[in-house]
Amino acid sequence: MTALAWETILDLGAGPGPLHGRLEDAVREAVFTGRVPPGAALPPSRVLADTLGVSRWVVTEAYGQLVAEGFLESRTGSGTRVPLTAGTGLPSSRAAHDDVEAHVRAGRAVGTDDPTDPLVAPDVGTRATSSGRAGAGTSAPRARFDLGPGVPDLRHVPRAAWVRALRAALAEAPDADLAAPDPTGHPATRAALADYLARARHVRAGGGDVVVTHGADDAMRRVAAALHRTGHRAILVEDPSWSRLRETAAAAGLTPVPVPVDDDGIDVDALLAAAGRTGARAVLVTPAHQFPTGAALSPARREALVRWARDVDGLVVEDDYDAEFRYDRRPVAAMQGLAPDRVVLLGSLSKTLSPAFGLGWAVLPPGWRDTVVDRGGAGPSTLDQLALVRFVTSGAYERHLRAARGRFRRRREALVEALASVLPGASVTGIAAGMHAVVELPPGIVAADVVREAALREVNVAAIERYRATAARRDGGSDRLVVGYGNVADARVEEAVARLAAAVRAVGRAMGR
Amino acid sequence: MTALAWETILDLGAGPGPLHGRLEDAVREAVFTGRVPPGAALPPSRVLADTLGVSRWVVTEAYGQLVAEGFLESRTGSGTRVPLTAGTGLPSSRAAHDDVEAHVRAGRAVGTDDPTDPLVAPDVGTRATSSGRAGAGTSAPRARFDLGPGVPDLRHVPRAAWVRALRAALAEAPDADLAAPDPTGHPATRAALADYLARARHVRAGGGDVVVTHGADDAMRRVAAALHRTGHRAILVEDPSWSRLRETAAAAGLTPVPVPVDDDGIDVDALLAAAGRTGARAVLVTPAHQFPTGAALSPARREALVRWARDVDGLVVEDDYDAEFRYDRRPVAAMQGLAPDRVVLLGSLSKTLSPAFGLGWAVLPPGWRDTVVDRGGAGPSTLDQLALVRFVTSGAYERHLRAARGRFRRRREALVEALASVLPGASVTGIAAGMHAVVELPPGIVAADVVREAALREVNVAAIERYRATAARRDGGSDRLVVGYGNVADARVEEAVARLAAAVRAVGRAMGR
Repeated sequence: MTALAWETILDLGAGPGPLHGRLEDAVREAVFTGRVPPGAALPPSRVLADTLGVSRWVVTEAYGQLVAEGFLESRTGSGTRVPLTAGTGLPSSRAAHDDVEAHVRAGRAVGTDDPTDPLVAPDVGTRATSSGRAGAGTSAPRARFDLGPGVPDLRHVPRAAWVRALRAALAEAPDADLAAPDPTGHPATRAALADYLARARHVRAGGGDVVVTHGADDAMRRVAAALHRTGHRAILVEDPSWSRLRETAAAAGLTPVPVPVDDDGIDVDALLAAAGRTGARAVLVTPAHQFPTGAALSPARREALVRWARDVDGLVVEDDYDAEFRYDRRPVAAMQGLAPDRVVLLGSLSKTLSPAFGLGWAVLPPGWRDTVVDRGGAGPSTLDQLALVRFVTSGAYERHLRAARGRFRRRREALVEALASVLPGASVTGIAAGMHAVVELPPGIVAADVVREAALREVNVAAIERYRATAARRDGGSDRLVVGYGNVADARVEEAVARLAAAVRAVGRAMGR
Repeated sequence: MTALAWETILDLGAGPGPLHGRLEDAVREAVFTGRVPPGAALPPSRVLADTLGVSRWVVTEAYGQLVAEGFLESRTGSGTRVPLTAGTGLPSSRAAHDDVEAHVRAGRAVGTDDPTDPLVAPDVGTRATSSGRAGAGTSAPRARFDLGPGVPDLRHVPRAAWVRALRAALAEAPDADLAAPDPTGHPATRAALADYLARARHVRAGGGDVVVTHGADDAMRRVAAALHRTGHRAILVEDPSWSRLRETAAAAGLTPVPVPVDDDGIDVDALLAAAGRTGARAVLVTPAHQFPTGAALSPARREALVRWARDVDGLVVEDDYDAEFRYDRRPVAAMQGLAPDRVVLLGSLSKTLSPAFGLGWAVLPPGWRDTVVDRGGAGPSTLDQLALVRFVTSGAYERHLRAARGRFRRRREALVEALASVLPGASVTGIAAGMHAVVELPPGIVAADVVREAALREVNVAAIERYRATAARRDGGSDRLVVGYGNVADARVEEAVARLAAAVRAVGRAMGR
């Protein structure tokens, strides 16, 4: 293939609209006309940015959009390309859209946990379905407007800072650090995490109480196995709640026992009743920011929970999943600090940096540490653990968190403002925290219907019902959507909300009002 | 603390002996006299090398020795220091030596799998005992002459090349690669491993048949769990063999059934009998280089093993642990290539780079891939997986392997030569491969006694009996030592062998001859 003269092919001219939009149009045009043939590689973003005299952001934004639409595909190791099926007059984005419509017409259930259902917002930590991805590096296409909860801002993963931390850590690590690792984590990593959590979350623990894991799921898997080994057969869970941790507990042999939540978090009276009924002596909670309702667990309930755990010789598992992101006040301390003898705290980098890091931790009551190591299993790479030490102790992690907090706060404000302007019948509930908002729909509007209509408009969003631990559906009251804003570009918030509003109106129209 | 004038304190003079030995003496002297006080940090090795006008190797070698002796300690994040307990006239090395003697006098069993036993060579992948290491980064001291098997050359871990691979991979990875990972591994990583294994090991597989794991142990854990789920309750294992994988299988509910090995590898007639007796339909083998005997599985037996697996609808688990290192001829192809439908191949970077990478793989028969993913578990960091793609496809991995192969071959030759010269009554058995040799002791010399005497001489070595899968000890015949040379400095091979020979002579004297 002869070299392509990109500056000629992709003439951005002086047309209207933002540069990245004009670049997108130019690429679409070039693909349609065949000037850039199927299979052709596009230049690396830096190179194209130089060639066209635009910022690299313009190029990455345009590439990202075109990949999402299927005009381009992105493979690790071979960059960005025109798909071999392109240029047929039916770009794959249109084919994909037809697929979605066919899917909806076929009446597939929406709002379930079916991981193969393209209409449902994927959980973070969702196992990408692996079928059909073998042997190639194609990134799975995402909805154009991804309002799935729990996905961090993948545009701002601190790649360079992480590489710097790793380089610095490896420059000074003694050879002995590269020998067989301690399965509970490198001592320096455990100490650095204990220090950080003491400072940021008021956790009371030393490095000896910390185990480094592959993430919060992995930590839950190990804690659940340890509970099962010591005779536990059930675990109380919030209803609704993040499905994956419940399922992980269930896979280890612990039956999840749902307990309702309200505006103060888990209902402790209901918990006591459920515990009495089932004999459950362990509970999984999200005190900082209940998922998905967005409640913070009240101080009185925190104390009641600890009292209960002490009374029954039980355990509280605190999923501290996005505690770093609170916008209305300083974060509330972790429950672990109240009762280090009864609380296991689970945390990870999956929602503060990215799930690609595969790093998490559990802070455990005394005597528990070695119980959560599984035979034949292994902790994360020592190299990564040493990089983490450097990343945390150098202040890079807290700098990243501060920047992310600012970004998410502004994005949340923009989202709430846009919702108030185009969906005045809806209201946002829950505290100002994390990376998702809960939107209470106008009376009578069913969230699952909105999810379906939104998908037709290229918006990925989930109904709160999706996170129910029970099959039973609440009667009456308003229905709610879980609207994630972690991984939506600031520039697209307004349009995403406009499309969501259109979806709500379409549902209303279908109901004849 | 005022800055120390290192060039004055550590005067190497023109004295006799190698530079690193003189530097060691200078540091010992400075610590004893208090010129370098307890708690003082030593300069980074590069800096001290510059200051003293010696090569960096001289400094790292001296530091390594002094850390092993307890004169210095090495902590990640704070470099090399004088311990706070130093300068009391009893350096910790002497205390440690006394401990060893007390331990031996107390008559503790040697040659067992007791992981807390300091006299026993640790397995690679041995879980460092974590007690007492909490909160600090102190590296556990190692024996001065570490002849434990399975430890790669930690002096030659390609740190910089790995950081370069990660940096390059992250510079081009699309944002979508940083979202929730595929639990079976990134498609590009699976494809790169399939390509590499096809080239290097004649494995017949596509990326879709590969699962990226945290190492061979983790792969074994998952395969064993999948076997258990599908009704298996036993697994045939070589006797002797690497203890950890057997134990991992046992922890998943598979009873290990020992099968003897001879000079052609596992005894297939004995295997058929054991399988018939127990109903076992799975076997764990090391065809390339039986651990620890050093045999290669003969072609006839490879075929017989595959035939058996097909007859009983069974599975062969091929631990391909150090197949890259063969010195007498080109490596024999993996068994997997003979029968991709019946063989699971396990591999990792733990013995070619270092266990610190936490990266391994399983190549699985069709249909098996998704069965080895455990609920709540996770694959290695996507970042590391992308770095691995770059590391392998750029040729850096094969360059490293070539260099390591040369180093190990030369070191093995030096070891064999030294043994022939100072221990003429002993002989080396097994093929010229891997990172350990098996030494047959003179008749009547018990290996466990030699292990004990060697420990008194600061040599860490293991008796072959340590790897027995059965409690029964062979009667008669010669006893054997497993002598690892992966992590012993070339310059120390001769002295290590001399000390080993002294240990053998001491055992002979004690027997009155």
